[in-house]
Amino acid sequence: MTLPRSPLAPGAFPEMPSVPGVRMATAACGVRYPGRPDVVLFELAAGAAMAGVFTRSATAAAPVLWCRHALQQSGGRGRAVLVNAGNANAFTGRRGELAVNETVAAVAEALGCEVESVYPASTGVIGEPLPSERITGNVPGLAGHLSSAGWADAADAIRTTDTFAKGAARTVRVEGVDVTLAGIAKGSGMIQPDMATMLSFVFTDANLEPAALQALLEDANDRTFNCITVDGDTSTSDTVLLAATGQAGHMAIADPMDERLAEFREALLDLMRDLAQQVVRDGEGAQRFVTIRVSGARDRLSARRIGFAIANSPLVKTAVAGRDPNWGRIVMAVGKAGEPANRDRLAIAIGGIEIARAGEPVPDYDETPVQQHMAGREIDIAVDVGVGDGSATVWTCDLTHGYVDINADYRS
Amino acid sequence: MTLPRSPLAPGAFPEMPSVPGVRMATAACGVRYPGRPDVVLFELAAGAAMAGVFTRSATAAAPVLWCRHALQQSGGRGRAVLVNAGNANAFTGRRGELAVNETVAAVAEALGCEVESVYPASTGVIGEPLPSERITGNVPGLAGHLSSAGWADAADAIRTTDTFAKGAARTVRVEGVDVTLAGIAKGSGMIQPDMATMLSFVFTDANLEPAALQALLEDANDRTFNCITVDGDTSTSDTVLLAATGQAGHMAIADPMDERLAEFREALLDLMRDLAQQVVRDGEGAQRFVTIRVSGARDRLSARRIGFAIANSPLVKTAVAGRDPNWGRIVMAVGKAGEPANRDRLAIAIGGIEIARAGEPVPDYDETPVQQHMAGREIDIAVDVGVGDGSATVWTCDLTHGYVDINADYRS
Repeated sequence: MTLPRSPLAPGAFPEMPSVPGVRMATAACGVRYPGRPDVVLFELAAGAAMAGVFTRSATAAAPVLWCRHALQQSGGRGRAVLVNAGNANAFTGRRGELAVNETVAAVAEALGCEVESVYPASTGVIGEPLPSERITGNVPGLAGHLSSAGWADAADAIRTTDTFAKGAARTVRVEGVDVTLAGIAKGSGMIQPDMATMLSFVFTDANLEPAALQALLEDANDRTFNCITVDGDTSTSDTVLLAATGQAGHMAIADPMDERLAEFREALLDLMRDLAQQVVRDGEGAQRFVTIRVSGARDRLSARRIGFAIANSPLVKTAVAGRDPNWGRIVMAVGKAGEPANRDRLAIAIGGIEIARAGEPVPDYDETPVQQHMAGREIDIAVDVGVGDGSATVWTCDLTHGYVDINADYRS
Repeated sequence: MTLPRSPLAPGAFPEMPSVPGVRMATAACGVRYPGRPDVVLFELAAGAAMAGVFTRSATAAAPVLWCRHALQQSGGRGRAVLVNAGNANAFTGRRGELAVNETVAAVAEALGCEVESVYPASTGVIGEPLPSERITGNVPGLAGHLSSAGWADAADAIRTTDTFAKGAARTVRVEGVDVTLAGIAKGSGMIQPDMATMLSFVFTDANLEPAALQALLEDANDRTFNCITVDGDTSTSDTVLLAATGQAGHMAIADPMDERLAEFREALLDLMRDLAQQVVRDGEGAQRFVTIRVSGARDRLSARRIGFAIANSPLVKTAVAGRDPNWGRIVMAVGKAGEPANRDRLAIAIGGIEIARAGEPVPDYDETPVQQHMAGREIDIAVDVGVGDGSATVWTCDLTHGYVDINADYRS
């Protein structure tokens, strides 16, 4: 099944700069898809710091367990990231662990590093053995063709049902030197990262201690990938890795809240929000990109839960698909969220047009401009639940026939 | 939009006996739908006990708030139930309360009872004012045509997107006398009752103290309506009322666990399970009825949460729609449930055929018989999560193009 490019896709793949200390190569290993690149190897300069956040799934995949182990064993250092598409190596038992051991060993040998410096990630079908020999056989070739360019190829190689390759880059100044950030992501279905995300790999030449890098990643992740949903389903393989090669030339920074990192923190957040939104824009079957802004909640987490209750409601999502400003379903979703909300102070706006306040429709509500807004591709829903100061923004897409088509057919 | 009858519907509406002390009448009031009965009035003999369970939604509708108030004020007594379809009288603010006041007052006057003995329920569109005068104007006519027969008409009158009328009856012996139970229900979308259900009204001539009746209802409800989901969405109007007229002629029973009620308890559970399953069989767009049995969980509630995580996963539901035995998605749903589960002891069976045990696919797994099972209408999924003795069963349906069609068009 070849899917048409999402109507919500951004323009062409962005121009992406090289990141000093980062090289990459792709190969068509035939893990599952014939005749297309499906494996990418990233090499990091010696001494690079590594940070990661992962799925909280109780059935996490073998590569996720390895990455957690490696982060701990290496003290937050990394030399390589190896990613394959087509097979998630999840629910594969002992054979899954062996497959990870084999692939990281092959990379460690080819690059001359410790196995605990190699971070694997896999995406694709669950429950089928990973044909690891198809990958290991290609590792020497990958290691022999490493280049500081090739972001678009790398982003392409990790696609499954994604209809477009996802990448973003930013450049900032730290201590008077240029620092580059560049990242790629994949994800389209099984998207509601739980304190983690689908696959995303972000690289920088900033010089950061591992603990600082981890703190920066967790904070940005919590406000980006942890705020998106396509279908409320959490993958067994969600992984975000952030590597910092330190080659930018500034002094090492150990405190994530260091003032010198102000611009870097903002750029990291911006880049990750960009990638996260690209995942939603490629949501399976998506025809509309929906921003849900919740305010007046008890706190930020409560606001986010209410946002997700709205974003994951099949009735809200199908109403958006049908261009129907059916705000009664938004009321329903707020009500079912299990979070404090004051029914009689509830306010709702769609496309900036106030529909309800103080728990009932506004007088002389005219639906026409709201219908016009919903005919567009970018839908904005704002809800104030009237109990506190907590606010959060969640991004999602609509639920369409395309989603049913893709998921009744595709074995992910 | 006229929907074809669900392929999962049972045969014709069942033969339903009259319940001594219960009379009913329907009328076409034009609340929303022209030219069809849309209101039903039930009259109960003086002294009838009443019990109720309701939505836990934070945005509960005005009739729900009234019913809670009336149950308390009357000490669990009732003389009438008034139900309308087409307008939920939810998120209607002060006007919604006034509309309830007007309708219960009209019924109280027509039947000569207290307003706190009248239990209203409304289902349909959210956020539009209830045209209560269309109902109150018909109340005298309804009161003048009460009959002990008419269950099918009553079940028809409360339909919204339901494609068939839902009813069930049982007869048991209590203290040597015949006791009858009869109930109706409606529901098709916005179905995941949270400690309550969509609308259902059950009547018996058993002689039960209100506290006993309430306990019996809560227990049966917890194992029936609270175990179903169509779309994971919880209505603002979920209501189950159970009325007992006491006219069967046995001595009043005050203890819900009284041995003399053993057969009654079983029949109540069976009847409510029947109605709950009928709601799922009429799930919007449903083509397959799915039973999900979870075992090996920490306790029953944990098992039910895991069951719901599977039942509400859009990826599992679309796989069922596509006849795809995609058990990897079941693994994913177990993992995201947020409940204890042992990945390496997980076992999965579909249609009684073991697919995975001890955390990986069984050797020489042959998908053919599983595919045959999934081509049928009744799908059975069994999951053991390997940590304890808790078990639960949850019922749901698949997610099809029909669901998207109905909900992109129908304003519920």
